[in-house]
Amino acid sequence: MIIYNFKNDYSEGAHPNILKAINNTNYRQEEGYGEDYFCNLAKKNILELIDYPEADVHFVSGGTQANLIVISSLLKPYESVIAAETGHIATHEAGAIEATGHKINTVSSKNGKLYPKDIKAQVEYHSDEHMVKPGMVYISNSTELGTVYTKKELQDLYEICKQYDLYLFMDGARLAPALTSQANDLSLKDIAHLSDVFYIGATKNGALLGEAIVINNKNLQKNFRYMMKQHGALLAKGRIFGIQFIELFKNDLFFELARHANTMAMRLAKGIQDAGFEFFTEAVSNQIFPILPNDLIKRLSEKFGFYVWAPFDEKNSVIRLVTSWATKEEMVDKFIEEIK
Amino acid sequence: MIIYNFKNDYSEGAHPNILKAINNTNYRQEEGYGEDYFCNLAKKNILELIDYPEADVHFVSGGTQANLIVISSLLKPYESVIAAETGHIATHEAGAIEATGHKINTVSSKNGKLYPKDIKAQVEYHSDEHMVKPGMVYISNSTELGTVYTKKELQDLYEICKQYDLYLFMDGARLAPALTSQANDLSLKDIAHLSDVFYIGATKNGALLGEAIVINNKNLQKNFRYMMKQHGALLAKGRIFGIQFIELFKNDLFFELARHANTMAMRLAKGIQDAGFEFFTEAVSNQIFPILPNDLIKRLSEKFGFYVWAPFDEKNSVIRLVTSWATKEEMVDKFIEEIK
Amino acid sequence: MIIYNFKNDYSEGAHPNILKAINNTNYRQEEGYGEDYFCNLAKKNILELIDYPEADVHFVSGGTQANLIVISSLLKPYESVIAAETGHIATHEAGAIEATGHKINTVSSKNGKLYPKDIKAQVEYHSDEHMVKPGMVYISNSTELGTVYTKKELQDLYEICKQYDLYLFMDGARLAPALTSQANDLSLKDIAHLSDVFYIGATKNGALLGEAIVINNKNLQKNFRYMMKQHGALLAKGRIFGIQFIELFKNDLFFELARHANTMAMRLAKGIQDAGFEFFTEAVSNQIFPILPNDLIKRLSEKFGFYVWAPFDEKNSVIRLVTSWATKEEMVDKFIEEIK
Amino acid sequence: MIIYNFKNDYSEGAHPNILKAINNTNYRQEEGYGEDYFCNLAKKNILELIDYPEADVHFVSGGTQANLIVISSLLKPYESVIAAETGHIATHEAGAIEATGHKINTVSSKNGKLYPKDIKAQVEYHSDEHMVKPGMVYISNSTELGTVYTKKELQDLYEICKQYDLYLFMDGARLAPALTSQANDLSLKDIAHLSDVFYIGATKNGALLGEAIVINNKNLQKNFRYMMKQHGALLAKGRIFGIQFIELFKNDLFFELARHANTMAMRLAKGIQDAGFEFFTEAVSNQIFPILPNDLIKRLSEKFGFYVWAPFDEKNSVIRLVTSWATKEEMVDKFIEEIK
Repeated sequence: MIIYNFKNDYSEGAHPNILKAINNTNYRQEEGYGEDYFCNLAKKNILELIDYPEADVHFVSGGTQANLIVISSLLKPYESVIAAETGHIATHEAGAIEATGHKINTVSSKNGKLYPKDIKAQVEYHSDEHMVKPGMVYISNSTELGTVYTKKELQDLYEICKQYDLYLFMDGARLAPALTSQANDLSLKDIAHLSDVFYIGATKNGALLGEAIVINNKNLQKNFRYMMKQHGALLAKGRIFGIQFIELFKNDLFFELARHANTMAMRLAKGIQDAGFEFFTEAVSNQIFPILPNDLIKRLSEKFGFYVWAPFDEKNSVIRLVTSWATKEEMVDKFIEEIK
Repeated sequence: MIIYNFKNDYSEGAHPNILKAINNTNYRQEEGYGEDYFCNLAKKNILELIDYPEADVHFVSGGTQANLIVISSLLKPYESVIAAETGHIATHEAGAIEATGHKINTVSSKNGKLYPKDIKAQVEYHSDEHMVKPGMVYISNSTELGTVYTKKELQDLYEICKQYDLYLFMDGARLAPALTSQANDLSLKDIAHLSDVFYIGATKNGALLGEAIVINNKNLQKNFRYMMKQHGALLAKGRIFGIQFIELFKNDLFFELARHANTMAMRLAKGIQDAGFEFFTEAVSNQIFPILPNDLIKRLSEKFGFYVWAPFDEKNSVIRLVTSWATKEEMVDKFIEEIK
Repeated sequence: MIIYNFKNDYSEGAHPNILKAINNTNYRQEEGYGEDYFCNLAKKNILELIDYPEADVHFVSGGTQANLIVISSLLKPYESVIAAETGHIATHEAGAIEATGHKINTVSSKNGKLYPKDIKAQVEYHSDEHMVKPGMVYISNSTELGTVYTKKELQDLYEICKQYDLYLFMDGARLAPALTSQANDLSLKDIAHLSDVFYIGATKNGALLGEAIVINNKNLQKNFRYMMKQHGALLAKGRIFGIQFIELFKNDLFFELARHANTMAMRLAKGIQDAGFEFFTEAVSNQIFPILPNDLIKRLSEKFGFYVWAPFDEKNSVIRLVTSWATKEEMVDKFIEEIK
Repeated sequence: MIIYNFKNDYSEGAHPNILKAINNTNYRQEEGYGEDYFCNLAKKNILELIDYPEADVHFVSGGTQANLIVISSLLKPYESVIAAETGHIATHEAGAIEATGHKINTVSSKNGKLYPKDIKAQVEYHSDEHMVKPGMVYISNSTELGTVYTKKELQDLYEICKQYDLYLFMDGARLAPALTSQANDLSLKDIAHLSDVFYIGATKNGALLGEAIVINNKNLQKNFRYMMKQHGALLAKGRIFGIQFIELFKNDLFFELARHANTMAMRLAKGIQDAGFEFFTEAVSNQIFPILPNDLIKRLSEKFGFYVWAPFDEKNSVIRLVTSWATKEEMVDKFIEEIK
């Protein structure tokens, strides 16, 4: 019998403050499609938080939707997007980006991150009109392998992007765990100044649904709501995005929830390390990737939910453990107990 | 000062039963992306309700999303969809259908409905490979002009669709007000047998968000979730669809909410008629279209929210009034008071 | 037995000068994909002819290809193109424009032409992000109904396009018959100054295949070859475009061929008029649309090829007669003989 | 000064027989868009040649056009195509396949060929609806690296494709040099029985332009001309395809031209080998890839045209030499002379 599920950070519902706020505002009549009081207030709050008043903010219901709308909005038909081959858009979105007409130029990456040399190589390889023309770089922070970008790394990427006339887009489905990671030295404000567009994920950090797309580059802001409508992303009761983000950014709740998720992950990581096991990538956020013996994995899977990520060698595999705002210390300890 | 808004049926939040259920199930760990306990139960309930066990059910977050996924899923690249020129896909979805590559063949329609002769004319006009090939008929019930289809009308449409090898797709964003209209003689079960695919709208009938797509035609069911994922429609916390539909179909709530909306609309309509005014289309569901003098409209608009639909003649215009599960009799009466 | 075919202006092969030039240049080794000596020379010749040195010229193999590449190249994903409902892109390209993601906003038109009031109405109707945003106006000259634009009409259209921030694109598949029509007062140079992009059709005026796209608006020139490649329009032996256009613009051949086609059409028109019949649209170019009794049409169709365009009334129909550079006076006279 | 160009097999015009036939048929009035006498006869000839009467044949103007129409015609929106990373569709078509909405799953390949293990790995990797679903395998014969498939290799590929419900599509832009290679044991008839669709390239084997798409799989034949029209591939004077293919398949000309190209390539290869150099891939068709010292390459490039394919090591690079039906022995010998 499964006693706890470490499969992902969206197994539970929403933080109680959010549910309470949805309840309390329920009978207020509001404009539809994100033009309501709550969305406007949430946008204002976000602009203050990132200290970037000329940015634009839009809310959508999930990461794939954010990615496909942002990318197809920014690229010309013959332009491609450079991404790590582990990037969410490259593997886990059922061809959503290609369905909007754009090729993804993938770069092999051991830790899920992209570096300036990767960008340079891609730009130089695509030399004429018989090939696509790279127009954008997509990165995830935290990455799909739980790693995070440092300020220096982001600065270097942004610089080479500007040099090659590429937009830099950060997928922040798990931005909160990234920004509260022990390995992080970036702020939301930094990101707003070191990217053209990024989004702040809430679905995986305590909301029912919702990602806040922030468009820093003024040239990219025009008519974005047309793109959202065209892809079915304008919700009639868009107010639920506003209500949730207002709550998340009240009293630092957004970061507090991620800090809790990270603390639980670090506790798991320490237990696993103390038991003598290593990790596939550095364990610094709420997704960790220990390398465990296959028989132990089999045993663990009888009590805990998690994904087997990939075989490591003949006897060991990499598993993924994910913690969230809702993970209880007790369950972490039970898991550690099991592997001792 | 606006005392009440008749602009639409999504100005308020959700029915309290729904909010309660979201609260009560909040900490239960569930599978993501619509494969959870609640979605599975809601699907089962819907299949029973429509008495069509071999149908498939999928939940998405809005009407435009439902329309673009269904249509692009069913048509071949060179196929088009026939719709009334007032149809939602033809005018109010920012080119969402064309963005998936398909032309809409529009038919002019005074009451928002399509008839067999329209289908015949379109099929006959499109005669060879220099033109698109109609592959589907799209209808809305209730229509964008508040009218509803009778059983006979739907039977006739379905018959001609089968004759010409066209799929019949019913947009049910406002299916509940249609099925509870005084002019209706259709059941959910009838619709399941007289269409290839349809959806049951909940966003405009008491839910926070959610439309249940029902695929009756077995040939169209395969791999539909790939299409949903590709268009960003699989929500990580898909559970919220299941939770809401379970509540809506408990104790007939879904129909009760629509009956209330219709009752409010009929009360409005009677008041308007008693005051000596006529209607642009027959007032039979929760959207009504009275023809009012422009100066009265101006006066009304100081106290009530509503859309001016179109000019009628030099002195009069058509307005749209929409009621919902949340509309209070008191507000209806205040409106009527104002036009006497 | 059919003695002559007035179905279209592409029933024969190419003008002998063109075939001769293809022969004479056959063994010269050239760069592929339109970067050869001949294409470069032909482009230079065209720029001189239109007296617009800052324009760009590209060659493609047909009208549908030209239309889909130009339109998808210029529009943003949510933008639409305004066209007459008789426009080639609207009816006879199998959804080629929609396949690139764009809606066509059609305007009903009796003579195949668009007027400023049509543009104004379309722009005003499309008021917000729930609808597409018109981004371009598409016109054909000559139109699909054989009519031609005057300089004043084009000036007025171009002016309103600039006013509303719309591109103006002229489909010139039959530009040569337009410019040599008795009703014409436009020059190639005028068109280059009164449009953002247009093309000069050769397929229907004596070439084997080939349309020369001229991009006047400098903002639209960048990376156009990527769009051509992506749509399969860069031919390995692109030289054949250059060779043909060089011949066509030598000694005024291009206009001479069209003048012949028009002369043949006017001779046909006069014969038909003299026999007492009227025309559906003004007969001014190489496509004419007489209204003939159905029994005469039946009789004519035993000896001549042509399309029955549409029924006119119970006893009469509109037919389309097309002449070309290759039409012989003798065949025209035989047709006239038949209707006397 | 460049005395000869080995850059590609489309530097010259067309075989004289073809030009003569275009001349001789010039004034015959024919139906447009590929429905003429010549296209019908050429199709009949091809069906006899491949001994597969139930196949369908269509003509298009180039390889990218053939690839994008075939692939987008056969795949459902969420399906992908598996290709070698050197495959033409993967690198040199400016994102043409993605522009129709489909992802390419690339497989790394040293010799340009795909093997059953590659297919298996791709199918197994793509496990659920969060990823695309492979629907087709794309191979080129000869490949972009000059190699060719044996009958056994093709049988094995076709078998695994059928096992996994994948279509097998062979890009035959250079099919003639493949089928006349010393390494070949396949016939056109074999290919018709061991693929679902393939095409016979003529542009690179003596025609002005033209590829003959052969659809063997009857389930894939329906409405293909709609797809062609939608992508601008139906040429008004489609007759030129028919005329050319009739000539090419008269008296074995098609194979004779390729045999000549291959003989020239083998002569080049022997000269290069005799001079002590090796090849990046096996030299068996009209594209060969010798590894030469960089200083020799520099010297050669002053007299001959060719592409430097890739650096091999610090001092050597791989170059590509291509011969054609028009390559003269004398030029080959001059090249060999230069490297001795």
